[in-house]
Amino acid sequence: MTKTPTTRLKKANKIIHLPFVKKTESTAVATVADPEKGVPATAIVYCEANFGLIDGKTANGLVRHSEKYKIISVIDSSKAGLDAGSVLDDKPNAIPIFRDLDEALQHAECIPDYFIYGMAPATGMLSKAERAIVLDAIDRGMNIVNGLHEFLNDDPEFAAACKAANVEILDIRKPRAKNDLRLFSGRINKLTCPRIAVLGTDCAIGKRTTANVLTQALNKRGINAVMVTTGQTGKIQGSRYGVALDAVPSQFCCGELEATIIEASEGETPDVILIEGQGALSHPAFCTSAFILRGSVPDAVILQHAPRRTHRCDFEHMKMPTPRSEIDLIQAFADTKVIGLTINHEHMSDTEVSAAITAFEAELGIPVTDALTRPADLLVDMVLSSFPELERKQVAAVV
Amino acid sequence: MTKTPTTRLKKANKIIHLPFVKKTESTAVATVADPEKGVPATAIVYCEANFGLIDGKTANGLVRHSEKYKIISVIDSSKAGLDAGSVLDDKPNAIPIFRDLDEALQHAECIPDYFIYGMAPATGMLSKAERAIVLDAIDRGMNIVNGLHEFLNDDPEFAAACKAANVEILDIRKPRAKNDLRLFSGRINKLTCPRIAVLGTDCAIGKRTTANVLTQALNKRGINAVMVTTGQTGKIQGSRYGVALDAVPSQFCCGELEATIIEASEGETPDVILIEGQGALSHPAFCTSAFILRGSVPDAVILQHAPRRTHRCDFEHMKMPTPRSEIDLIQAFADTKVIGLTINHEHMSDTEVSAAITAFEAELGIPVTDALTRPADLLVDMVLSSFPELERKQVAAVV
Repeated sequence: MTKTPTTRLKKANKIIHLPFVKKTESTAVATVADPEKGVPATAIVYCEANFGLIDGKTANGLVRHSEKYKIISVIDSSKAGLDAGSVLDDKPNAIPIFRDLDEALQHAECIPDYFIYGMAPATGMLSKAERAIVLDAIDRGMNIVNGLHEFLNDDPEFAAACKAANVEILDIRKPRAKNDLRLFSGRINKLTCPRIAVLGTDCAIGKRTTANVLTQALNKRGINAVMVTTGQTGKIQGSRYGVALDAVPSQFCCGELEATIIEASEGETPDVILIEGQGALSHPAFCTSAFILRGSVPDAVILQHAPRRTHRCDFEHMKMPTPRSEIDLIQAFADTKVIGLTINHEHMSDTEVSAAITAFEAELGIPVTDALTRPADLLVDMVLSSFPELERKQVAAVV
Repeated sequence: MTKTPTTRLKKANKIIHLPFVKKTESTAVATVADPEKGVPATAIVYCEANFGLIDGKTANGLVRHSEKYKIISVIDSSKAGLDAGSVLDDKPNAIPIFRDLDEALQHAECIPDYFIYGMAPATGMLSKAERAIVLDAIDRGMNIVNGLHEFLNDDPEFAAACKAANVEILDIRKPRAKNDLRLFSGRINKLTCPRIAVLGTDCAIGKRTTANVLTQALNKRGINAVMVTTGQTGKIQGSRYGVALDAVPSQFCCGELEATIIEASEGETPDVILIEGQGALSHPAFCTSAFILRGSVPDAVILQHAPRRTHRCDFEHMKMPTPRSEIDLIQAFADTKVIGLTINHEHMSDTEVSAAITAFEAELGIPVTDALTRPADLLVDMVLSSFPELERKQVAAVV
């Protein structure tokens, strides 16, 4: 495959990007990316047949929140022509969805900096067809962001392609070298900063999104909150403190998380640390949350639940747990307290969300909200009601 | 370093070994190892400063039970001149302990087939001094059995040394290639054979030893029991079904164990499957038992506990849990039942063991025994009282 002319444009270090819509603002603001001026690199997210669905969670997350990359488009032939924000949250965000890489590049003025593989299949491996697509992106001069368990830098074909195209692959899930992996030490118990883990009743249920929204809302209220991510998507989104736990040899999971939290504490001297959960403590296949509870020793837990989900995602024969049973399990497993429930509103009307909030508050006796459809201040209040000392930091900040 | 003459002997495929004492027999029986006739290869176990201690658990395990290798001696300068069986269990077994490799080889008629690194340090890594010792063993023509997290085949210096000496390194803990790692599927729930996990209240507390003794005792009684090991020592001991779980990326832990159990079930059509636990479910650092409970879905659990151990091994500030709290935790975490407690008698007199058995039976209401100092039949009875259907298999076997 020969290089496209736009590749040469990029190599000349003269990157002109398409107008970009800042997602946090209500009106479109055109920007021109310039890595030298600290403007994020541009990226296309590949999410064929899965955008907006559970296995597309990396793409979904990036379209909602990305600090490191400007997402200029999504590739998913099944939703080509639609707006990514509309598909995801009924809120247009001017990130178009295209049929394939050809179409996406036709609509870009030059080759974007990155091609992000935006899916999280349970196997964590690239299919044969996907290999060809990623190699094509490399040949066209795009760097690759790979969150799979399969490390593409270790694959001779990918390594050779990168060398030929003068681009690089970021294997996001790759743990540090074995000699540098850290064992749990117990130092976490000396941190005075409160730690809150956001766990869930299933995989891909919105734990990271809720933690993101909560972190931003706390900071807006003058409380210095830092989020520690535990999956590949958080790292791709630009999290400064994160470890993809499911790729870490189990011996080092508690220790790697503990060390990452201590780094966040020392680096940011935060008022509160939020920790992204993984899977579910009750999950028959994905119970990394056991390590998250042991490694972070959280003072409190917020539990994310999807009332309309009937079975675990990817496991049709596994029934979902109830919030009650998951809370009991978490509190039996670790010396912590579940302080609130957050709702994933998939397949629910707004009325149904309200009814669920009322019903769960009555049943569980803890605050319940939805991070995406209800005011973020309710999430902050959930935290403040259990950590009133944070209120003082908030007041101090406002004064 | 030049080769010793004995290396050439070995290369000539003419291996004459020292008289070897079969550990299961009360009188010494001289054998001559001959791999071609199915006689196990010979091995020296390196356990400097740690034989009989907690971090020497691989060596301790091999001296007690080894199907794959004939252990001809142990290296530990702090116990040089003693008998390994006497040190470990007050029962001489004619496995001498030597000061160093030189001394061990002086007492061997030729170079043994294997040098086994017999310690399990928490870091899982080789120290600088140990590197030199292992390289020395390679230079002298011994194959290396390495159960560390550090894979020596990946180290250019070790790889070159092996090539030069025409020997190989077995990196026991190395998981299968990433593309071959298996996710939990739920197929385990279709097995009809009962599964019993042997968990513990700490690391290096005797779970594997108890499971080994129980497996052998069940088979002696005509019940076809197969043991699935989950650590490096079990694999080195010659377990046919095992996976070193702590080296597996956490995403695949449940699945790798499930698949290994299914292989054991299909390969042996056993009456009962025993699963070796790891660490402790309550352990702040090593809670791989969470994956063991999820991946094996055990019908029952036997809990191993050391009444005189005051804190977790390697963690002086972490208090040991009580059997009661660990049982509650296990039964809250998984849909299973703890059917018995087994005692590790470290730092206990025989009278104290008896007193502990009586006290724990009264407190917990389940059978209690010590796999090493009490008759193995008591362990079998513990299983039969919860699985009376196995009694019929036993009767059938006897008839």
